[in-house]
Amino acid sequence: MSSPSLFDRATDHMIALQESILAAVEELEGGASFRRDDWEREEGGEGDASNPAAPILRGWGRTRVIENGRFFERGGVNLSVVEGRFGSVAPTHMPGDGHQFRAVGVSLVLHPHNPFAPTVHMNYRRMERGSTGWFGGGADLTPNYLFEEDARHFHTTLKTVCDAHPGVANHTAMKEECDRYFTIPHRGEMRGVGGIFFDHMMTQPEESFAFLRDASQAFIPAYLPIARRRDNTPFEPHHRQWQLLRRGRYVEFNLVNDRGTQFGLRTGGRIESILMSMPANASWAYDHHPAPGSDEARMVAALQPRDWTA
Amino acid sequence: MSSPSLFDRATDHMIALQESILAAVEELEGGASFRRDDWEREEGGEGDASNPAAPILRGWGRTRVIENGRFFERGGVNLSVVEGRFGSVAPTHMPGDGHQFRAVGVSLVLHPHNPFAPTVHMNYRRMERGSTGWFGGGADLTPNYLFEEDARHFHTTLKTVCDAHPGVANHTAMKEECDRYFTIPHRGEMRGVGGIFFDHMMTQPEESFAFLRDASQAFIPAYLPIARRRDNTPFEPHHRQWQLLRRGRYVEFNLVNDRGTQFGLRTGGRIESILMSMPANASWAYDHHPAPGSDEARMVAALQPRDWTA
Repeated sequence: MSSPSLFDRATDHMIALQESILAAVEELEGGASFRRDDWEREEGGEGDASNPAAPILRGWGRTRVIENGRFFERGGVNLSVVEGRFGSVAPTHMPGDGHQFRAVGVSLVLHPHNPFAPTVHMNYRRMERGSTGWFGGGADLTPNYLFEEDARHFHTTLKTVCDAHPGVANHTAMKEECDRYFTIPHRGEMRGVGGIFFDHMMTQPEESFAFLRDASQAFIPAYLPIARRRDNTPFEPHHRQWQLLRRGRYVEFNLVNDRGTQFGLRTGGRIESILMSMPANASWAYDHHPAPGSDEARMVAALQPRDWTA
Repeated sequence: MSSPSLFDRATDHMIALQESILAAVEELEGGASFRRDDWEREEGGEGDASNPAAPILRGWGRTRVIENGRFFERGGVNLSVVEGRFGSVAPTHMPGDGHQFRAVGVSLVLHPHNPFAPTVHMNYRRMERGSTGWFGGGADLTPNYLFEEDARHFHTTLKTVCDAHPGVANHTAMKEECDRYFTIPHRGEMRGVGGIFFDHMMTQPEESFAFLRDASQAFIPAYLPIARRRDNTPFEPHHRQWQLLRRGRYVEFNLVNDRGTQFGLRTGGRIESILMSMPANASWAYDHHPAPGSDEARMVAALQPRDWTA
């Protein structure tokens, strides 16, 4: 009997990861809160038919969305397992060769109601193309108000995981990659306080997989203590208004800059799963600048790369 | 004495156009409602410095924004006059040659409070690159609820202008171009009921300019009667919620698909002027479908190309 492939083992991990995160989040919520939407897709494209790079996809997934929960206003914790082949134009920027690829991953975005509780994002995945396979992913935190202890806790938890896997993970490099990736170029600011991000991790596959398991499971200790700390903090309408403006920036980043969202929208991915990252509500205002010295100004000043583990 | 260039005459027209539209909108509002923000920009880039195609720009503009007006929730009527030169990589998809270009245009987006009043967009411009110059632009209407007489009025008014300039304007072609341009590929629907759109109008410059003048001035008779008709229509919270979801789609189109927005954001344009097209508020909900037979479902069914002048 042959042992299961790394892809299959990664799939088993992602299935279990999604379940454990859902259980932890529902405990915070105080009850079953996620809408469960299992999907399966026969081979066939949707979306932008004029795009010769659009792949034909098939696969299955478990979309788990929360809307108007006790703690979370909107979000999702999604599992997807897809295989496909690129159309006439295979991408040159992706490792591996040929037109066949497959991917398994868990993708999470959660937007709390409370303006003092940060939005969080996490995505970990295994991809294979031709005979080449790799891991990628990361997690980042997007507060509306700066609590330095929250940023420190999030970063320190992720650093501990990286430091436990020195053969494959370098926290400094992954933290800097995250700072770069989650910068909104047209705003000259990060969308939050960062975290870690990496891609194309392909050497030492066993050690890489061990790191991926630990990093993805660290979501619970990295984020939930922060959520509990900010739960029930009283807030005023002006805090909510600021949160909505910051969510406008989140929307800008995701729709203009996020490579995963762009790839999904342009290649016929499942729209409702891709756009579960959108907040329930977002606002825009002309040339808005927080008052100097305000809590809002302190937050904006922190949207630049900073060492949160010092 | 040499006669003024077409660019200078187009600039004079745009200045007067902006003033006349502002006056008409403020009459609807019942008073001075626009914030006036004049800007001037010395030569120098902002934005995405890693983009070798980013042009160096200088110029001036008159940004006029309205927020929380009597009738309009948010919007802008902006004039800009810029000249620039492309960086090391000059675009190959743009007419003309060389690295120098200049542009003058008026750009308008207005989002009413009332869910029964449609959002409207208009943009007309003169561009020149090297020794080549051209006109472009158009206008489109985005209702949240379908009033067939509104769509017919808007389209018929624009058709009348096109039909008066048969040497340069073909309403059928311009209407179809608009249907194509304002389709959201990942949603498989138009963002509204369309209008007209054209670009690269470069032969017969005098007749083209006459058409541009008439088409841009037709904004007032095309839109304002619709706005007056829907003013003060009573609405319920569920109408507002639907409006916010439709505004989410508007945001998706503008940030993901709109070429002007993408160009502006990636080439260091003035962010606040570019993003005046964003609504004050927008919402997203998972897998939302209006009830069959509802007014909302009737609206969605109308977001496909249709002849509104028949």
